[in-house]
Amino acid sequence: MASLEDIAVSAFINILSAIGFLLAFAVLRVQPINSRVYYPKLYINGLRSSPRGSMNGVLRFVNFNIWSYIVSFLSWMPEALKMSQTEIIQHAGLDSAIYLRIYILGLKIFVPLTISALLVIIPVNVSSGTLMDLKKDIVFSDIDKLSISNVKPGSERFWVHLCMAYIFTLWTSYMLYMEYDNVAFMRLHFLASQHRRVEQFTVVVRNVPQISGHSIAETVDHFFQKNHPDHYLSHQAVYNANRFAKLVRQKERLQNWLDYYQIKFERNPDQRPTSKIGFLGLCGRRVDSIEYYRQRINVLDKRIASEHQKIIKDPKAILPVAFVTFGSRWGAAVCAQTQQSKNPTLWLTEWAPEPRDVYWKNLAIPFVSLSIRRLIISISVFSLVFFYMIPITFVQSLANLEGLEKVAPFLRPVIELKLIKSFLQGFLPGLALKIFLYILPTVLMIMSKVEGYLSLSALERRAAAKYYYFMLVNVFLGSIIAGTAFEQLYYFVHQSATEIPRTIGVSIPMKATFFMTYIMVDGWAGVAVEILRLKPLVIYHLKNMFIVKTDRDREKAMDPGSIGLSENLPTLQLYFLLGLVYAVVTPILLPFVLVFFIFAFLVYRYQIMNVYNQEYESAGAFWPHLHSRIVASLLISQLLLLGLLSTKKAAHSTPLLIILPVLTIWFHKYCKSRFEPAFRKYPLEEAMEKDTMEKASEPNLNLKAYLADAYLHPIFQMLEDVEMGDIRADKNQANVSSPQITEPISTPSPHYVFDHSSSPRYQYDDDEDEDDYSPPHYVYHHDI
Amino acid sequence: MASLEDIAVSAFINILSAIGFLLAFAVLRVQPINSRVYYPKLYINGLRSSPRGSMNGVLRFVNFNIWSYIVSFLSWMPEALKMSQTEIIQHAGLDSAIYLRIYILGLKIFVPLTISALLVIIPVNVSSGTLMDLKKDIVFSDIDKLSISNVKPGSERFWVHLCMAYIFTLWTSYMLYMEYDNVAFMRLHFLASQHRRVEQFTVVVRNVPQISGHSIAETVDHFFQKNHPDHYLSHQAVYNANRFAKLVRQKERLQNWLDYYQIKFERNPDQRPTSKIGFLGLCGRRVDSIEYYRQRINVLDKRIASEHQKIIKDPKAILPVAFVTFGSRWGAAVCAQTQQSKNPTLWLTEWAPEPRDVYWKNLAIPFVSLSIRRLIISISVFSLVFFYMIPITFVQSLANLEGLEKVAPFLRPVIELKLIKSFLQGFLPGLALKIFLYILPTVLMIMSKVEGYLSLSALERRAAAKYYYFMLVNVFLGSIIAGTAFEQLYYFVHQSATEIPRTIGVSIPMKATFFMTYIMVDGWAGVAVEILRLKPLVIYHLKNMFIVKTDRDREKAMDPGSIGLSENLPTLQLYFLLGLVYAVVTPILLPFVLVFFIFAFLVYRYQIMNVYNQEYESAGAFWPHLHSRIVASLLISQLLLLGLLSTKKAAHSTPLLIILPVLTIWFHKYCKSRFEPAFRKYPLEEAMEKDTMEKASEPNLNLKAYLADAYLHPIFQMLEDVEMGDIRADKNQANVSSPQITEPISTPSPHYVFDHSSSPRYQYDDDEDEDDYSPPHYVYHHDI
Repeated sequence: MASLEDIAVSAFINILSAIGFLLAFAVLRVQPINSRVYYPKLYINGLRSSPRGSMNGVLRFVNFNIWSYIVSFLSWMPEALKMSQTEIIQHAGLDSAIYLRIYILGLKIFVPLTISALLVIIPVNVSSGTLMDLKKDIVFSDIDKLSISNVKPGSERFWVHLCMAYIFTLWTSYMLYMEYDNVAFMRLHFLASQHRRVEQFTVVVRNVPQISGHSIAETVDHFFQKNHPDHYLSHQAVYNANRFAKLVRQKERLQNWLDYYQIKFERNPDQRPTSKIGFLGLCGRRVDSIEYYRQRINVLDKRIASEHQKIIKDPKAILPVAFVTFGSRWGAAVCAQTQQSKNPTLWLTEWAPEPRDVYWKNLAIPFVSLSIRRLIISISVFSLVFFYMIPITFVQSLANLEGLEKVAPFLRPVIELKLIKSFLQGFLPGLALKIFLYILPTVLMIMSKVEGYLSLSALERRAAAKYYYFMLVNVFLGSIIAGTAFEQLYYFVHQSATEIPRTIGVSIPMKATFFMTYIMVDGWAGVAVEILRLKPLVIYHLKNMFIVKTDRDREKAMDPGSIGLSENLPTLQLYFLLGLVYAVVTPILLPFVLVFFIFAFLVYRYQIMNVYNQEYESAGAFWPHLHSRIVASLLISQLLLLGLLSTKKAAHSTPLLIILPVLTIWFHKYCKSRFEPAFRKYPLEEAMEKDTMEKASEPNLNLKAYLADAYLHPIFQMLEDVEMGDIRADKNQANVSSPQITEPISTPSPHYVFDHSSSPRYQYDDDEDEDDYSPPHYVYHHDI
Repeated sequence: MASLEDIAVSAFINILSAIGFLLAFAVLRVQPINSRVYYPKLYINGLRSSPRGSMNGVLRFVNFNIWSYIVSFLSWMPEALKMSQTEIIQHAGLDSAIYLRIYILGLKIFVPLTISALLVIIPVNVSSGTLMDLKKDIVFSDIDKLSISNVKPGSERFWVHLCMAYIFTLWTSYMLYMEYDNVAFMRLHFLASQHRRVEQFTVVVRNVPQISGHSIAETVDHFFQKNHPDHYLSHQAVYNANRFAKLVRQKERLQNWLDYYQIKFERNPDQRPTSKIGFLGLCGRRVDSIEYYRQRINVLDKRIASEHQKIIKDPKAILPVAFVTFGSRWGAAVCAQTQQSKNPTLWLTEWAPEPRDVYWKNLAIPFVSLSIRRLIISISVFSLVFFYMIPITFVQSLANLEGLEKVAPFLRPVIELKLIKSFLQGFLPGLALKIFLYILPTVLMIMSKVEGYLSLSALERRAAAKYYYFMLVNVFLGSIIAGTAFEQLYYFVHQSATEIPRTIGVSIPMKATFFMTYIMVDGWAGVAVEILRLKPLVIYHLKNMFIVKTDRDREKAMDPGSIGLSENLPTLQLYFLLGLVYAVVTPILLPFVLVFFIFAFLVYRYQIMNVYNQEYESAGAFWPHLHSRIVASLLISQLLLLGLLSTKKAAHSTPLLIILPVLTIWFHKYCKSRFEPAFRKYPLEEAMEKDTMEKASEPNLNLKAYLADAYLHPIFQMLEDVEMGDIRADKNQANVSSPQITEPISTPSPHYVFDHSSSPRYQYDDDEDEDDYSPPHYVYHHDI
């Protein structure tokens, strides 16, 4: 077990590397050439434009002003605090602002906890001094002297820990309650102050029944005209464009290659580039690349056109789903919250997500299939969480030298080399695990997609939930109970309900040093890496080198990324769990958590202001999940403390702890009924208020024109524009731009589309399936 | 352990006693004097009236026609099958018809299960013959030779049991699905074919905020006029009449005593009755009873009048609850299913229960209090289920002779008498338990009331749920694991998750004979007692002897009772559990369950046709609960089989069983999403259809008049009638009588009220808090 010195060394290393990363960041971010890596959000919001106009030569790429380096290193923290919360909401959306409030919540909970724990629990623990009296052959670390392990079994001092557990629970609950209240208020206020948005008037209807002799469109029209006569406006059919989108994507890939070879040819006009057309360009006939790709694009163009015709003409291409728009927010709120049909599996209504938040592929899943998908995915997640070590061990055993030699005997001479052998033995097994952990978030996201949720925001929340379970079992419990998750499962099943928290509880103080180093590596140095943005930096410059020809390409190469809730929420929840579990047991861990919260708060605030670009606006829809998982952490901490104390013969105080979980569960239920409706439903009072105000201020609003085509599959937006350009005219009168991004679009023919981007026509066409396509081509007016 | 002969003897005794009860029933029911005990429902529905006109003398009371006795004994079963389901729905309501379908479901599940189990499993078990080879010192019963215990550990024959477990689960699930579908259809059809009812237009709103300077009525009017401008009609404020109702009840009690003494005086005019006015009439001054009660009634009359004035004038008497009525079913459906206010704890809306189903006392509970109440009640139910033996043991130890002698030494001479001593020792401990079990349903109902549900139907469902938990732990598990529930709890907590089903599973076959005798006593003889109606018979004749003066009193003495869902649902669920658990393990138990289902079906069908009077109509709202508890039984049976097989070394087959619970849980989730909305929500399609039809058929309907006062507290109905008689005039034009009972009312002055009962005025005043008052005075037009 690590001693205080070991911890200090580890802290020193981690702080040093964090400072190193920050220094690198300070140097890199003042280089003009990196400007689009470190300030993409400012470009997107039009607060910064290409700097080339003002500077010349090398100055365009490198910064020689030494003073600016010093400023750069010192100033990012003050810069991160520059904006007020209101400005952040305007600048980066409510989701980002609410995300930052998680760190504030962490500070609000843990600052008082840390102070009181250090002032009360540590003196009590230290002065008990049991461990010092013990024989020297059991080596206890210094950290343990500060922890509850130092208190004599049966001591009356456990009353102090008991009281502190109560105080901590009360304080945490109080803070959680206040913050939930605050976030719910922010959400309602945001929704109330929003300008008109298409999703306020739109409901997505799934499982429209197929009535023979009628088209889906007729059925939908008839049903809603009958059942919502005063409010129904129109609807937008959903086309099965997955095949079409695939063709378009395919064409885009070919277009990229064509561009690449054309540039190659321009740079070196003597030699026409050629390539092989077989597998991965490794074999097959050698052809002229430019000609070849041009031909293939031509073929594809024809297929795209015929597919488009097919979608428009074939009634089967219309899915039994529709975006139904209403004449008032009240009508939409009513339709979204009520049951429509006598058969509860038909005409399922829910609020439409924002157009850019829609995950189009999942719109066509029928009811029975949905329920089977969820069953399969829950079983898969369970297996993934508990049995993920099995395939990895298998791969590792393959990667093992003997295994490798057996599988591929021809490699034997290479493997037998001493250097390579030791490298493989030391590295390969770890690599398999590393690769698995790296692709895990992607796997979880795919699983969530299979589950059939309709919006990207819901998908991110579901993926975050799965990741949380994985971390809870494999990082938290896995570190405490040694052994694989499968062994843990075996252990859980074969232990009694009282024995489990006892065994885990007992080993908790012993693992404090491990979690301290974990926090320093993952929470301190890891966060510093986040601000450095190594991966986007490398990719941007690679793209810049090989692909970028125009400003548009440079925009395209810029990858602002997003907060990444699906990974960051579970990580944050893990820190809350660690803090709450160790608050009473080994309070010396708390300052480490605190440093993480402060540092990560600054880094993410800075990144949100300068880097990340919001993909969608869910108005803090993730908060109920965060809240309930922090409450679950509270419960876990109480049960483990109960288990720990029950081994300490503190017979007077332990039974009193049983009340805590009961109260905590009740608190959770109360919060759920008190606040959750604000995140799930849209109150009629609110809808009516906004309707009335709008009617008063804009009596002549042409709502139908405003809502038309808002929920058209993004792939059609462009084509419709060509063929139905005229009907768009009246829409421009409404001229409302809801989100800040004006025009992200992926198109069959880029050259064609970007003619449009300078016209104001697209301002409200914010619907983009950002998930399906290669990096979206953001187009900004100020830039072209 | 009981042998086959013991079971046969027990069966013989129970069948004999069941026949005895049925004979007694046959004799008693043909006596004209018992007519109102055995046919109250026919009186209520007007299918039978007082028989005295046609007969004279002793014939009025006793039947001397011997032929009729024989017919009576033989004919009740065919009589029970006389009505079709549609007729039963008309005669006794949908709840009763759906309740009977539970027995049908039982038969549908268990007839094929019994046949296949007897044909397949029993031969397999018998031919294995392990137990016969064992030494004779372990005495196995004959029953065990038919059970799974007879199969050798590790035998391949367990594959048969495994397959049967799958087949049984599939069959049960299929039947459950079909029946859920059927019941949901019946419910929707019933709701669709119902005539206009006030609850279709009414929503109950709780937690109306107190806005200073405005009355509750103004606030409600303003809010709904603003947010439901097209549909809001009016609202009915709710007065806090609990105190008023108490006074009225008090007066009624005094009136009863006055009546009693007046009759006494009439029968014996020489001596004016006197009574003591102290504690329970045992001590205090002796006064003239008639004078005394008249005086007290006078005093009370004044207090009632002043309380009435106070309620009408004091704004604080108006509770922050309102029954809001809408101009269309659509409007009400929308309001009931949506969130109204930005603050989700205010303006909580839900469907109003039928007026006669409203539990008035709970209307005034605020949101925070509700959530605290539920916490307290869940803790209490938990303690009641697991620790109920503690107080009983305490009482028993008191009732113990030494204890009694210590507490009350003066009783020693009496106790020391041998006869009394043995009586006390043999009887008292059992009596304490018996009394507890007798009052248990009442206790559970009180607990449900404290939880704050708004309707009697919801209260019955909640009480049924609590009773089910009690039976599951104390009857089912309590019989399998010997020992008190507290010991079981200790056992559960200290055993591992795999060990629990194993231990229970192993003891299951051994308890088969116990449950067989339990089914015979409780399910065969017990059901026969139900048809005999001993308690109502005795009470009716006692009342007839002492109180009844007029026909009205005779009506009042008649106690039709109701199905009693809160006790009968859990009992039925227990039989489903026993049948499913033993289907694979000891299939010989199944015929016993089958006999119960057939016999109880006949008895309850007969009773529903002739005896029980429906208190409210919930249109089968209990079915989702029943369904999910049968699914839970299925799960329990699978887990226990898993536990049992895991001790039998059937290593090949056991792991395959794990899939079953997973599939069962999925089946439950699917059914829930597929059918439950039909029981919780009201589809807009349906509402719109009925609105449209009504508008077409009755274009001039005065809905406001029809809905006015429908949800007035029943205690005011009478008073309003005096003071506001004129505004009722237009309501009589609507002249709709929804339920069959026309006028149950408890009143401050009975003499006064019954003047009204012959007028048609009250026909739609079906609102009665039947729960709060002493037996309601049913008034039937045909009878007076």
